[in-house]
Amino acid sequence: MATNITFHASGVTRAERTTLRNQQGLTIWLTGLSASGKSTLAVELEKQLIRDRGVHAYRLDGDNIRFGLNKDLGFSETDRNENIRRIAEVAKLFADSSSVAITSFISPYKKDRDTARALHEVPSPGEETGLPFVEVYVDVPVEVAEQRDPKGLYQKARAGIIKDFTGISAPYEAPEKPEVHIKNVDLPIVDAVKQIIEYLDSKGYLPAAQN
Amino acid sequence: MATNITFHASGVTRAERTTLRNQQGLTIWLTGLSASGKSTLAVELEKQLIRDRGVHAYRLDGDNIRFGLNKDLGFSETDRNENIRRIAEVAKLFADSSSVAITSFISPYKKDRDTARALHEVPSPGEETGLPFVEVYVDVPVEVAEQRDPKGLYQKARAGIIKDFTGISAPYEAPEKPEVHIKNVDLPIVDAVKQIIEYLDSKGYLPAAQN
Repeated sequence: MATNITFHASGVTRAERTTLRNQQGLTIWLTGLSASGKSTLAVELEKQLIRDRGVHAYRLDGDNIRFGLNKDLGFSETDRNENIRRIAEVAKLFADSSSVAITSFISPYKKDRDTARALHEVPSPGEETGLPFVEVYVDVPVEVAEQRDPKGLYQKARAGIIKDFTGISAPYEAPEKPEVHIKNVDLPIVDAVKQIIEYLDSKGYLPAAQN
Repeated sequence: MATNITFHASGVTRAERTTLRNQQGLTIWLTGLSASGKSTLAVELEKQLIRDRGVHAYRLDGDNIRFGLNKDLGFSETDRNENIRRIAEVAKLFADSSSVAITSFISPYKKDRDTARALHEVPSPGEETGLPFVEVYVDVPVEVAEQRDPKGLYQKARAGIIKDFTGISAPYEAPEKPEVHIKNVDLPIVDAVKQIIEYLDSKGYLPAAQN
């Protein structure tokens, strides 16, 4: 058990890791309403990054987090904050390892997203720089999301079966200055992915396309 | 916020990820007393895997876990269990992403290590197989560890300043069948790393050595 919590310098520096892996670690943080299309977007983005750019990318989403690391958490305000805090910490570990972490959670509160951003951008002990944090706002009006409602969640929220449902009975605080703002409701998924990748390329975060 | 916790099939399957990245994800779980040499071993192992094998390897240790993800946890029994549980879950995420996760924690209780193993080896929903879990016992007698005592922790434990210190005032339950047993106290670090890599190669877990 770690009674030792002094800080060591790493054997492999982040700079060296980035060079050896030919990849800049970073976190792409998707935020938006339920049924806004975050998960679909995350899946397609991951595919393109892995297949076309040879990047070590990995998605963190409800499937692998809520059933695993955060299975002890419920939906109280405290638990929701802790949910996002842990996701941000894990995304940061992936980014630090020179992976591209793609998180796909509603994350409705500005404060939580800002905490996640600060965790990345403020250098940890022993580091000279922080890690890039790319906030992607998947912007779909609640009326549209509610009409889609593929899992019947909005319907349950309207019926009062689900309490504190974002967009219906709990607020969604839209990002003010997201790095990427995807706002066309009818935007094909391929174009939404392109918009994100163009942003990443404009920052030089990705290796060149393969074949 | 993830009120959606149904399970999706991944866009990129683990098999495809493994092929594209030319790498089998797995977790190497180091266990042993404080001052047994786990951290040094982890650093050298990570270096060799990244530099010589081109593998995406990443260490989880007190530095990046106790100051981050688990900074809310203390050293009560409940918190120690939760500490190891979360580490195991995060290691599994790295392994699932086709990284080699190297964890370096005393992890003195057999039950906790067995839980970590089961988390990896039992397939999750949507998966056909589990992930390899390689337990590495860094076996150094407590007398030797206490003599080294680079951080003066054993001295503090003897003086009663640190309570429940593994090997002094709390038990260390040695692994019965670790995949790798490193037992020579005077074994040079390079040979200990070699012993682990030979095991990984015997299982076909690593890509061939580069130049």
